[in-house]
Amino acid sequence: MYPALDQLIHLLSALPGIGKRSAMRIAFHILQNDPHYAAELGQSLMNIRERIFLCEKCGGFSEGPVCDICSNPRRDARILCVVEQPSDIFAVEETGEFSGLYHVLMGALSPLDGIGPSDLRLNELTQRISELPVEEILIATNPTMEGDVTAQYIAEMLKNREIHISRLSHGISTGSSIEFADKSALARSIRNRQEI
Amino acid sequence: MYPALDQLIHLLSALPGIGKRSAMRIAFHILQNDPHYAAELGQSLMNIRERIFLCEKCGGFSEGPVCDICSNPRRDARILCVVEQPSDIFAVEETGEFSGLYHVLMGALSPLDGIGPSDLRLNELTQRISELPVEEILIATNPTMEGDVTAQYIAEMLKNREIHISRLSHGISTGSSIEFADKSALARSIRNRQEI
Repeated sequence: MYPALDQLIHLLSALPGIGKRSAMRIAFHILQNDPHYAAELGQSLMNIRERIFLCEKCGGFSEGPVCDICSNPRRDARILCVVEQPSDIFAVEETGEFSGLYHVLMGALSPLDGIGPSDLRLNELTQRISELPVEEILIATNPTMEGDVTAQYIAEMLKNREIHISRLSHGISTGSSIEFADKSALARSIRNRQEI
Repeated sequence: MYPALDQLIHLLSALPGIGKRSAMRIAFHILQNDPHYAAELGQSLMNIRERIFLCEKCGGFSEGPVCDICSNPRRDARILCVVEQPSDIFAVEETGEFSGLYHVLMGALSPLDGIGPSDLRLNELTQRISELPVEEILIATNPTMEGDVTAQYIAEMLKNREIHISRLSHGISTGSSIEFADKSALARSIRNRQEI
């Protein structure tokens, strides 16, 4: 093949969910269609890391030093939602159920991958708690082993403070059926059954 | 959200096989990982259309005016393989079964989409036949209705010439595309090509 095309396919293959075949298909699409599109997408990719930063307060995405959520005085500073990744903020925001502030850990504890407490933004978390009138910490780590361990660690770390610690309820997803529910999700929803 | 991020997601969503969710996932991956990667991919996309052209002879991809295949004196100029898209050439080359030259139509006949004979590189095809010592035309259009109609049209167009017209044998599933055909199925279709 041609070096420039090989390189593009190689780079595209590194994207999440894109294998070699999809990368080839995308590269051919780019070569066989509107040339302005390729230039526009390329420009957007080159600029994105200079236009979107991480907020110096919460660690979420931001176009300036402090993000729109942290700088919004109408957000409720009494409740802080702790997430693993900046992108998790979008998922929580989309629900329209949360009006507090966020704190991004930048990962989850994972001893097998060598990720310990000092690799997460935990010092920044205690710092923010001391600066904000926090009454509740809502831990929204992923429902995985790493997310569970991280949630436990944070709960333990903050247990002597007068702060409520809560976590997203887990179980089978709303609108799905018991019959086809993921086994571990169903197991967890049995353990976490709620009185009605 | 943020305009720069919105734009990136919008552009990524236009790629084949990439929906809104995948586009968001890719955008977040780009923001949360190595910044050099985003710049490198962006640069590659911006340059690709200036580095890869269409060969002025066959219409396939090329890094110069004439592609590596057309300018290779060891390729057999007595057999010409007609394909719909430049990317189809890679699929045929990968089989290792074909040593002739190619001709790209840049599409297939599709009256419903308003694509008629004058929209394809058919004049260029007759021109090349008059310049090359062609003894056989292997039609490798897709096994779709449009590909079938195109193959019939070309066979009809060339019927008064002393040229064998063959087409890839069936064995590649109907309704699929040459570009993504299984390599061994495609190789078999070349060996078993049928005269039409």
